[in-house]
Amino acid sequence: MEGLPVVAITMGDPAGIGPELSLRMLTEPAVLAECVPVVFGDAAILMRVANACNLAPPEQVLAESEWKSRPEARTAAVIDCSAVDAAAVRPGEISAACGRAAYRYIEAAIESALGAQVAAVATAPVHKEALRLASVPYPGHTEIFAALTGAKRACMMLASDEITTSFVTGHIGFADVPRELNTPRILDVIELTAEAMVRLRGQAASIVVCGLNPHSGEHGLFGFQEEEKVIGPAVEAARARGINVEGPISPDAAFLPDRRKKVDAFVCMYHDQGHIPFKMLAFDKGVNITLGLPIIRTSVDHGTAFDIAWSGRADDKSMIQAVLWAARLAGAQKPLALRT
Amino acid sequence: MEGLPVVAITMGDPAGIGPELSLRMLTEPAVLAECVPVVFGDAAILMRVANACNLAPPEQVLAESEWKSRPEARTAAVIDCSAVDAAAVRPGEISAACGRAAYRYIEAAIESALGAQVAAVATAPVHKEALRLASVPYPGHTEIFAALTGAKRACMMLASDEITTSFVTGHIGFADVPRELNTPRILDVIELTAEAMVRLRGQAASIVVCGLNPHSGEHGLFGFQEEEKVIGPAVEAARARGINVEGPISPDAAFLPDRRKKVDAFVCMYHDQGHIPFKMLAFDKGVNITLGLPIIRTSVDHGTAFDIAWSGRADDKSMIQAVLWAARLAGAQKPLALRT
Repeated sequence: MEGLPVVAITMGDPAGIGPELSLRMLTEPAVLAECVPVVFGDAAILMRVANACNLAPPEQVLAESEWKSRPEARTAAVIDCSAVDAAAVRPGEISAACGRAAYRYIEAAIESALGAQVAAVATAPVHKEALRLASVPYPGHTEIFAALTGAKRACMMLASDEITTSFVTGHIGFADVPRELNTPRILDVIELTAEAMVRLRGQAASIVVCGLNPHSGEHGLFGFQEEEKVIGPAVEAARARGINVEGPISPDAAFLPDRRKKVDAFVCMYHDQGHIPFKMLAFDKGVNITLGLPIIRTSVDHGTAFDIAWSGRADDKSMIQAVLWAARLAGAQKPLALRT
Repeated sequence: MEGLPVVAITMGDPAGIGPELSLRMLTEPAVLAECVPVVFGDAAILMRVANACNLAPPEQVLAESEWKSRPEARTAAVIDCSAVDAAAVRPGEISAACGRAAYRYIEAAIESALGAQVAAVATAPVHKEALRLASVPYPGHTEIFAALTGAKRACMMLASDEITTSFVTGHIGFADVPRELNTPRILDVIELTAEAMVRLRGQAASIVVCGLNPHSGEHGLFGFQEEEKVIGPAVEAARARGINVEGPISPDAAFLPDRRKKVDAFVCMYHDQGHIPFKMLAFDKGVNITLGLPIIRTSVDHGTAFDIAWSGRADDKSMIQAVLWAARLAGAQKPLALRT
């Protein structure tokens, strides 16, 4: 494993499919070929799940103190955060205890990433209600990573060979979107997207920014001229900075097949504007990347799947992609071609 | 043409591609095989456009008074509403005069449909800003048809072989959507959708209702519990009435390929929630049907395309579909299979 980047994998909500996915990553040949996976979680949970799912138990388990004292460690391992009473966890059940534990794994992984003991972090899914029950003051991973790494600006990107989308707003209510839109934030997301695409593709990308209203408002006929007053000025400012970007474009025309061929990334105003087309085209084949952080972070593009937790039936395609992308972004000597 | 239904075609905005499309319908073999097309528009505009586009001028032109006095007329014709000064119209230009004329054609066609002189109405595109300049008190076709036919409840449906969506709200601003959602309205749209699908497919359909917030709000974590308080009760009420419907479902999971195979129609809360997936899958192959009217009305699924108006370059695929669907809905002795 000499020379391979160490990728932290956070175990996610203990009651979800995260533990099963984490176990699989420790032995997955495609993963081991490109990185050293280190799972931040609870060893006792992983033992229970290995048993339940008929998977190999982890070969190497380190206490957090051991891990911190061995910065040179370069073998697949589980870092035991001992954050939850494993015997009390019931698969598929939302609980504050599991939300708290999931948050603890993330904290520990971020600490290791900021200290450069790991090269990147790939996250298994957390449950947002469990986080809230645990009084975690962030709605999801993206916000946690932005806060704990002190990122001044960050956003979520979904990347795949088929389609790539980034987001001005995230996990907030539909009715809260309009007031969260402002020109500096949209400009930030355009810039973060442009930077990420250069890194991913090795050349300047063609970016499209979607409008907010039906038909982008038809010059103020619907909505409150968000396109003219808020989105348009951000696009203009980005162009003035040399970014190849156009918009705002009518959202329902943005994702037509002909346009998709010419566009490398879409900047979306709200969650479903980009998630609907992304999942239609790249479900289970995409990766969620947080842009703007001082560390590298990727994630699966699905949830905790409580209905099949601890059953051995979790599909690990997206988790493998998340880990491989984390490794590639960390180790990239040359640009990564998104379209091969 | 004995026995074929007479289908009114409204010419749409004179400055757009509607006149060209209308001319094409008068001679299109696929159209003439299934109906008698009667264009409600301005003869002088059609003459100018025929000239500009090198198309055949209309063979039969009737003044409105002539048309009304000949209820037995059953040949392709233009009904000359003389609603605009043809010499003053410039292609691609938004004007109150053209908005007013487009509205006049619709009024005349609706009158003929309510009087059973035509069996259905298929509409060429209007320009919403021109309608507003003309002080037409409705934002678009769907609202005009609902008002002028006295429909108590109506909604828009986009139908195609690939995907069918109906809409709780239409051409309104993004920020206006939440306050327009209420349980009776959503129940109306579910019922209208279920009725339409029986007519289109000949059997009860499987219907999915989308949520409003990301992940349908995750039990109130985002948004204002619109799913629990407003949408869910409508779904329950529809089920109690025997409709095969489920939801609210996370909008970004609703349109995954596997689910699409099992679902006949999606009830969407807002324009882009349904238009984004519909256009991705069925652009130029779909038809817009207004449900809940006492008359049959279909429409193209695109706009006035002012940039190519009067150039002869308009694509008439969607217009042909709109006219054929109008004819089929009018003449249907047996159910129409949407999936063949």
